[in-house]
Amino acid sequence: MKTPFIYRRPIRWGDTDAARIVFTAHYFDVCMEAIESFFLEILELDWFAMTCEKGTGTPFVHAEVDFHAPLTPRDVLNIRVEIERQGNSSLSLILYGNREAEGDAAFTGRFTCCFSDLKNLKSIPIPDEIRQRITYYQQQSSHLISG
Amino acid sequence: MKTPFIYRRPIRWGDTDAARIVFTAHYFDVCMEAIESFFLEILELDWFAMTCEKGTGTPFVHAEVDFHAPLTPRDVLNIRVEIERQGNSSLSLILYGNREAEGDAAFTGRFTCCFSDLKNLKSIPIPDEIRQRITYYQQQSSHLISG
Amino acid sequence: MKTPFIYRRPIRWGDTDAARIVFTAHYFDVCMEAIESFFLEILELDWFAMTCEKGTGTPFVHAEVDFHAPLTPRDVLNIRVEIERQGNSSLSLILYGNREAEGDAAFTGRFTCCFSDLKNLKSIPIPDEIRQRITYYQQQSSHLISG
Amino acid sequence: MKTPFIYRRPIRWGDTDAARIVFTAHYFDVCMEAIESFFLEILELDWFAMTCEKGTGTPFVHAEVDFHAPLTPRDVLNIRVEIERQGNSSLSLILYGNREAEGDAAFTGRFTCCFSDLKNLKSIPIPDEIRQRITYYQQQSSHLISG
Repeated sequence: MKTPFIYRRPIRWGDTDAARIVFTAHYFDVCMEAIESFFLEILELDWFAMTCEKGTGTPFVHAEVDFHAPLTPRDVLNIRVEIERQGNSSLSLILYGNREAEGDAAFTGRFTCCFSDLKNLKSIPIPDEIRQRITYYQQQSSHLISG
Repeated sequence: MKTPFIYRRPIRWGDTDAARIVFTAHYFDVCMEAIESFFLEILELDWFAMTCEKGTGTPFVHAEVDFHAPLTPRDVLNIRVEIERQGNSSLSLILYGNREAEGDAAFTGRFTCCFSDLKNLKSIPIPDEIRQRITYYQQQSSHLISG
Repeated sequence: MKTPFIYRRPIRWGDTDAARIVFTAHYFDVCMEAIESFFLEILELDWFAMTCEKGTGTPFVHAEVDFHAPLTPRDVLNIRVEIERQGNSSLSLILYGNREAEGDAAFTGRFTCCFSDLKNLKSIPIPDEIRQRITYYQQQSSHLISG
Repeated sequence: MKTPFIYRRPIRWGDTDAARIVFTAHYFDVCMEAIESFFLEILELDWFAMTCEKGTGTPFVHAEVDFHAPLTPRDVLNIRVEIERQGNSSLSLILYGNREAEGDAAFTGRFTCCFSDLKNLKSIPIPDEIRQRITYYQQQSSHLISG
């Protein structure tokens, strides 16, 4: 397990708007890419398989981004994903987006999803093996920070 | 001036993902459409003209959405835009997204932008005539709520 | 039945890129909105219901756009949808995108979809009642052009 | 120079729609990513720098995709970019999108752009050093095919 998990994402032409910086809404596409990769690589959980084969998913109940500095197609983002809180059904993540070359903070994101049965959209407990991986990742991350 | 300002938006096929509901990141595209229309119709401020002709803009410093209920292409959204706070350079908006047919809450959004010189991305005071329109809209809205 | 079918679409800030015109790929989002509305209003066919309830759909086998003039957020598009050809399973549409104010041609699109069983993605014949609506729309359109 | 140029792109959750395959319009976002990378790595031409510093760009005059097989988030695309034709101002590219695991064809794209002055959108000749790189890439590719 790579700790911390960092999603690398070059900013592209299609991310921009007429102000010649990344369009506000596109940050959320980029964050969702980072979270999808975190789920796949760290939690070993494939959203598409989970949806199509088991009829369960992790719809988001909250998403927010604080924008610290504008981004352009010359930037490459390094997005570090950390776990803020693990509830019975819900999982809260923090995303730290930094510019690779300068190392400065570009944005901070907070996203909460809820493990759910997609048929009735009722919450379900986080499956045990996923919970263990979340806990393990939290422990590895806290070692990094404290040590 | 229409008070309150409501942006009507049918949910479309292209808004969905494989869970057969609107994709998390697409809510922010929809909210930005609503805010752009609010700026144009209520504040008489055209982002594109402002950017190209004056070199000023309103980059966002914060964007968040709480998701209350899933949306599908059968839904039509009514998004009411209200002013949360007017600062020296910053403007905070609340967006209440309701499903037209059922009337229930689909999401609540909070967005803060900052009037800025796009060359150096330094904040500038909200122009006087825009400030007056913001204040007038606030007064009309509070009459509605109190009365 | 409104003949010809015209989809009205204001160009928005989020459609632009750093060249301050509409981003190439976004034309296809706009065209898909127009086609979805054409299916719903003229063919009385709801992609979402068709997909979720019947397991059939109309995946596209070809999509193309010729760009005649750039578009900016000051423009409003009028997109006229015409039927180029109706096959056993396939339907080819032509989209004429004109700027509302100036009336000049902004783009021409050609899109072909194929009625299909979504489980195995095998083609199915166009259902009879849809075929009748397509034929009727073609006749109404040709009257307009010839007469 | 890597010949042929291949852009690797995993399909993501955000690319899908309610039919649980990649949404038609999103193929064009993916193709534009591939073309942007081709311009940057093979032609050493940065769209963003070109636009902001020189006021020149390469707006597209034609874009089309033939879809051969559906794509889902389990797929990884390998998109090979080849030059179809080099004109005085225009450049036509062919994109061959193949699924990495199976090797089968997912789509073929044809895109033509036109080197232009962005102020008046008049065409300009392809700059000499870009023309040389295009020609060199064509020669390398034809060696591969013939040899």
